[in-house]
Amino acid sequence: MLRRKFLTGGAVGAAGLAAGCECGVPADIENLSGKIRSRELKMVTTWPKDFPGLGTMAERTAQFITEMSGGAMRVKLFAAGELVSAFESFDAVSSGAADLYHGAEYYWVGKSPAFAFFTAVPFGMTANEIMAWTEFGGGQQLWDELSAQFNIKPFAAGNTGHQLAGWYKKEINSLEDLRGMKIRMPGLGGEVLRRVGASAVALSGGEIYQALQSGAIDGTEWVGPWNDLAFGFHREAKYYYWPGIHEPGAQLGVGVNLGVWDDMTLQEKSIIEGACHRANHLSIAEYIHHNATALDQLIEDHGVELRRMPDDVLAALARETKIVLEETAATDDITGRIFDSYKTSLERSQAWSRISDEAFMSIRREVFEL
Amino acid sequence: MLRRKFLTGGAVGAAGLAAGCECGVPADIENLSGKIRSRELKMVTTWPKDFPGLGTMAERTAQFITEMSGGAMRVKLFAAGELVSAFESFDAVSSGAADLYHGAEYYWVGKSPAFAFFTAVPFGMTANEIMAWTEFGGGQQLWDELSAQFNIKPFAAGNTGHQLAGWYKKEINSLEDLRGMKIRMPGLGGEVLRRVGASAVALSGGEIYQALQSGAIDGTEWVGPWNDLAFGFHREAKYYYWPGIHEPGAQLGVGVNLGVWDDMTLQEKSIIEGACHRANHLSIAEYIHHNATALDQLIEDHGVELRRMPDDVLAALARETKIVLEETAATDDITGRIFDSYKTSLERSQAWSRISDEAFMSIRREVFEL
Repeated sequence: MLRRKFLTGGAVGAAGLAAGCECGVPADIENLSGKIRSRELKMVTTWPKDFPGLGTMAERTAQFITEMSGGAMRVKLFAAGELVSAFESFDAVSSGAADLYHGAEYYWVGKSPAFAFFTAVPFGMTANEIMAWTEFGGGQQLWDELSAQFNIKPFAAGNTGHQLAGWYKKEINSLEDLRGMKIRMPGLGGEVLRRVGASAVALSGGEIYQALQSGAIDGTEWVGPWNDLAFGFHREAKYYYWPGIHEPGAQLGVGVNLGVWDDMTLQEKSIIEGACHRANHLSIAEYIHHNATALDQLIEDHGVELRRMPDDVLAALARETKIVLEETAATDDITGRIFDSYKTSLERSQAWSRISDEAFMSIRREVFEL
Repeated sequence: MLRRKFLTGGAVGAAGLAAGCECGVPADIENLSGKIRSRELKMVTTWPKDFPGLGTMAERTAQFITEMSGGAMRVKLFAAGELVSAFESFDAVSSGAADLYHGAEYYWVGKSPAFAFFTAVPFGMTANEIMAWTEFGGGQQLWDELSAQFNIKPFAAGNTGHQLAGWYKKEINSLEDLRGMKIRMPGLGGEVLRRVGASAVALSGGEIYQALQSGAIDGTEWVGPWNDLAFGFHREAKYYYWPGIHEPGAQLGVGVNLGVWDDMTLQEKSIIEGACHRANHLSIAEYIHHNATALDQLIEDHGVELRRMPDDVLAALARETKIVLEETAATDDITGRIFDSYKTSLERSQAWSRISDEAFMSIRREVFEL
């Protein structure tokens, strides 16, 4: 705790000032005035309209830009399919057909596998760790370099937090039980599952419920209690498995057309970046609150049984994750450099987490016998 | 993971839309235009100038308001002691002598003990949990009600993250070792220490190093590796104890004079709130990054020995914390209501943390043998 008396001014020793200050008041305030231009900005998204936590976060980001610019930068928001399809968002912003997108960077792995690191990778960073890497650990600079190849300037603008392993019709007591199971899990997480002998399938969100009901799949992951409860998976699969390892904290992102960005004034840039980071703050808070509330409902009102994924399953998934991530890193120079930067930051931040948040949460739970 | 095909628009079922959307585009964009007034806003702070992480966060918040308003709202920042002393900041904003403060709400416990819950209490919320409670769990509404009694509108605007138990000259192998030890720890954490038989003293930041050197105290906490390394405590005390239980995630806050706030346009309000939440985002990222880096330096370059606080000490601290918090809650009606709301939110979010972040971080560490 920072003692009150310490803070009465002037008392700080030189030692306390050793670490640098990276900020200050704008060098050139005069140049800020009158530098906001009236215009409409088109924002495309990868989310259906009003989709809780994701679509709504894109809407909030748009709202914040509009509000903070006093309506001068009016963001017109297009849900997936309204202007272009979800996965044309990146190209639309790259070409200038749209000014901004709100989406998840791992949707662009077809452009470069390196984009996955700016959303989530198996056994990777938590929500807070990816923020630390992005904002202060060199992540943003590499992300800028990667996205600039496609004429885009990116920002962090949301995070789902931890995503659970998901819903299963049968118990998983060992790696043997998982082998041959048909599980809905796309992306790198699905690839890791396949390598331990499961059959990973990639169904669209709208197809999952029926596939689970008909027995076409034995299990599925989606996001977390909040978004999962809305889909009703608990009616078709009895066991809810934890933890997830495939997306420990999926960061959402905004991309701005680089020409539009470079042409912006300091005020306009500050409002865009500010809206994104404000959205990130609210998104983390929102997912924790709603996931915690929905988990309570799933257990108390719907009798859902929580199950911990067995140790041998987790160890096998970790072993294959290492291989999959190293294969990904070997794709090309920039992907290799991004992986190295990510890994260095993660190794340090998890050494810190071990003695801070992780240890504290574990001890708090034990001493209060929860 | 959110499957790509899900997101091509129109595919979402009604179930996916069941949770409400709390946002949207501003209802009245026209009224936003031209509604930002040129003026200077005085911001007082409880921090010494340039103090890493705290002073710099106040400076960033001021910078963001100035930048995003295009220099129309020019925030003039006063470090502790420059306009008023650190602990006169609250009264200065309350009376209108200053327009805003940046500080830590637990400095105002002399006004109401309830303010402690909006910064940190022993065995309380982590950085993410207090964000969830503040923004979505009813915390902000109660904070507004509490602060309005003093003519202030508050916002979250930073977080130090987990604070460690600190630096000790001797090993603590049991509760017996702690009894009679002189430890620098102010506030509720100090009160809890006293109740388990330690002698908690409240020294100002500038006094700690010499007290540790002379043997006047046996141990001290400060913030975490980043701020602690700068003070050089590792030269005087060999053992660095973890985890801390006294401040699991200390939230920093901004208070705006309520008359000034109520008179603001939607755009002005949006910029103020946006700057605070943007600062909160960066602060969490910054503390994780710098704490992780400094921890590495303390171990690799300075040979610091990490020690885990023994179980019997943690159990005793937890037992006394319950009593201290319940005594605090019994002070008056609003403190009781704030404690109840805090407790309800924390119980839910830690049940969620248990199967998500806590479990994931523990398993990730084990499988990668860190």
